[in-house]
Amino acid sequence: MRYQLYYWPEIQGRGEFIRLALEETGADYVDVARLPKRGMTAMMRFLESPAVKHPPFAPPFLKAGNALIAQTANILFFLGPRLGLVPKDEASRLWAHQLQLTISDWVAEVHDTHHPIAGSLYYEEQKREAKRRAADFRTARLPKFLDYFEQVLSRNPKGSRYVLGKRISYVDLSLFQMIAGLRYAFPRAMARLEPKYPRLVALHDCAASRPRIVAYLSSKRRRPFNQQDLFRHYQELDG
Amino acid sequence: MRYQLYYWPEIQGRGEFIRLALEETGADYVDVARLPKRGMTAMMRFLESPAVKHPPFAPPFLKAGNALIAQTANILFFLGPRLGLVPKDEASRLWAHQLQLTISDWVAEVHDTHHPIAGSLYYEEQKREAKRRAADFRTARLPKFLDYFEQVLSRNPKGSRYVLGKRISYVDLSLFQMIAGLRYAFPRAMARLEPKYPRLVALHDCAASRPRIVAYLSSKRRRPFNQQDLFRHYQELDG
Repeated sequence: MRYQLYYWPEIQGRGEFIRLALEETGADYVDVARLPKRGMTAMMRFLESPAVKHPPFAPPFLKAGNALIAQTANILFFLGPRLGLVPKDEASRLWAHQLQLTISDWVAEVHDTHHPIAGSLYYEEQKREAKRRAADFRTARLPKFLDYFEQVLSRNPKGSRYVLGKRISYVDLSLFQMIAGLRYAFPRAMARLEPKYPRLVALHDCAASRPRIVAYLSSKRRRPFNQQDLFRHYQELDG
Repeated sequence: MRYQLYYWPEIQGRGEFIRLALEETGADYVDVARLPKRGMTAMMRFLESPAVKHPPFAPPFLKAGNALIAQTANILFFLGPRLGLVPKDEASRLWAHQLQLTISDWVAEVHDTHHPIAGSLYYEEQKREAKRRAADFRTARLPKFLDYFEQVLSRNPKGSRYVLGKRISYVDLSLFQMIAGLRYAFPRAMARLEPKYPRLVALHDCAASRPRIVAYLSSKRRRPFNQQDLFRHYQELDG
């Protein structure tokens, strides 16, 4: 099975959570919108054509055989057992998915630190509001999410190396991406907070040292963090 | 199986999407935090006790036998086939879940029209920002979501009465709740937009006329919309 991933080609964004799962497992996939010829056209067709039976609201989406699946967490729910990135029993899959949905909420809050008014406006048009929202994010929401996932790690009965079970899951890879992105966007806030979250820091380092992830991160497939992306660094938002 | 639902007792909020699914199917459930004695204490225990193996980040959450499941869309994914509110094949379940996750995103955007800066601040402390965000929501985001779900209804190969298949699903019940809530919060904007969305309006009316939903909506279990809830009516946010 060659998976076809559709996502905006020049950013990590929400697609990155899926890329990391595919890369960690050496899955056969193509990042369609990055193909030099007609990649973006192919993506836009799924968003716009009236012939698509299950239209996505937005990228990312995944084509797997005849299936077309959208929503980041839903795609990972589908891929998880197929890639061996989650135990196959229902209870484990629901628990992993619950955690992934909480990460989705966290991602939306990160995005809104620089776009609290409208995604269609430039950052500069909502900078004052962004400063207020980012201050609340740094002081209240960010520690709340970090506390939560540190606690989840500490309660894994199989040890706090991973969020569930004894093996890496797609949730662990997503938490790696969160820590990496937050360090890029909020270096001062993260430097202040990280000593309180040794398990999350260790999880980040563990994921970052896996051979396929090392290879991926140093490849051109990993786009650098940038100021058009989900995680953005504006000094004035970092306190 | 008696399901135990845990959610804030005096609002509809995100819990209402689950209540509607349970009510439509006449499921045996208890709304624990509404119990007069110790209901809230029981809910807070799950959020705070270190003995909880799979802690929820926030309500709503559902206890079903030994399972404890959080995140609204995850709970509905779990309940859907058990309550007969989604076809049992994987493709249908993933499609329904994808739609429910898009509703979750929509819900978060509705919430942020009145709380664009911080959930911990009063509306009055972020009223100016709320006006800007609500204007974008009314003119750009609300029509985008309505367009999308109208299109989904129009593409159901089994007819556009429901979003998928020939029978009502939990997604249809959630769309009923969205239309009802948006009418409460943005009566002028909705009066202007609704003529463009006949299928969604018909779906709302169809759900609202089902015997168990009729009984539920006229019961005390259905809390009225109110200004502490997800959907809030502020005239200045309605254009």
